Amino acid sequence: MTDDTAILEGALANRSAWRADRCPVGKALEVIGTRSAMLIMREAFYGTTRFDDFAERVGVTETVAAARLRELTAAGLLRREPYQDPGQRTRHEYRLTDMGRDLLPAVLGLFEWGSKYLSPGGRGPLRLGHAECGAEAHVAVRCEQGHDIPLNELSLASARRR
Amino acid sequence: MTDDTAILEGALANRSAWRADRCPVGKALEVIGTRSAMLIMREAFYGTTRFDDFAERVGVTETVAAARLRELTAAGLLRREPYQDPGQRTRHEYRLTDMGRDLLPAVLGLFEWGSKYLSPGGRGPLRLGHAECGAEAHVAVRCEQGHDIPLNELSLASARRR
Repeated sequence: MTDDTAILEGALANRSAWRADRCPVGKALEVIGTRSAMLIMREAFYGTTRFDDFAERVGVTETVAAARLRELTAAGLLRREPYQDPGQRTRHEYRLTDMGRDLLPAVLGLFEWGSKYLSPGGRGPLRLGHAECGAEAHVAVRCEQGHDIPLNELSLASARRR
Repeated sequence: MTDDTAILEGALANRSAWRADRCPVGKALEVIGTRSAMLIMREAFYGTTRFDDFAERVGVTETVAAARLRELTAAGLLRREPYQDPGQRTRHEYRLTDMGRDLLPAVLGLFEWGSKYLSPGGRGPLRLGHAECGAEAHVAVRCEQGHDIPLNELSLASARRR
């Protein structure tokens, strides 16, 4: 059963004792588990800040865009700031917080996977790169010693809580 | 507007010309965009293979578990294989395919984000590690030259299609 899966250490090896309600993946999906929420975060990474642009680029109704932006702001991934174009009334834009920015690896993980397995010819429409050096960019699971980690070398252990 | 967002190159800079329906993130979420689908993949990474265990550990009804396992198998993330316990009839278990295994960075990205921002004290219940060397494991956006890439150094360009 452990031919190619993660390694569960200590108390975790007793699988029936797990409490799934504490799972961080589940908690994350409670916040960004809808397709429209994840696509709004994608747009925010791309630099979209204005309500009309979110609605149009995500391809959702204004009602859905408003609901998602309100939820993502309340959850802390975006912050709502006033701006004013010349001669216009004050409006609001939505900018990434640190919490929102830190979702990038998860979104890029979905991006790479979708590009490889769900796009024609196994190639997505976009190439990710590092602007500073020009090399291709990828999402990787790595350890602090600098090793790439395949699934069967990944260990999960209970974190000590204080 | 580009103070801390990704860098859109070439034709992409014309944002209104995008075709959101080709977005790999959107395509990925069509396959694993439900909370129960993502949690079933989490369980598969942890080594769960049997129907009853998926239903119990994800905390969904058997109807929901059956629907998600059928969809994930049809989409190619899991494969269904016969097994037989002594004295029992033949049943089926679900094992990760390469396509399913390659979803790991996206799921771990959600895991780390949920641990940091949505768990008590900013610490999730589990610690990810590299079994071979014992160091902590993380999901990172890196380039092929070995640089870590913050959002404002990430470039997106159109991939050439043949």
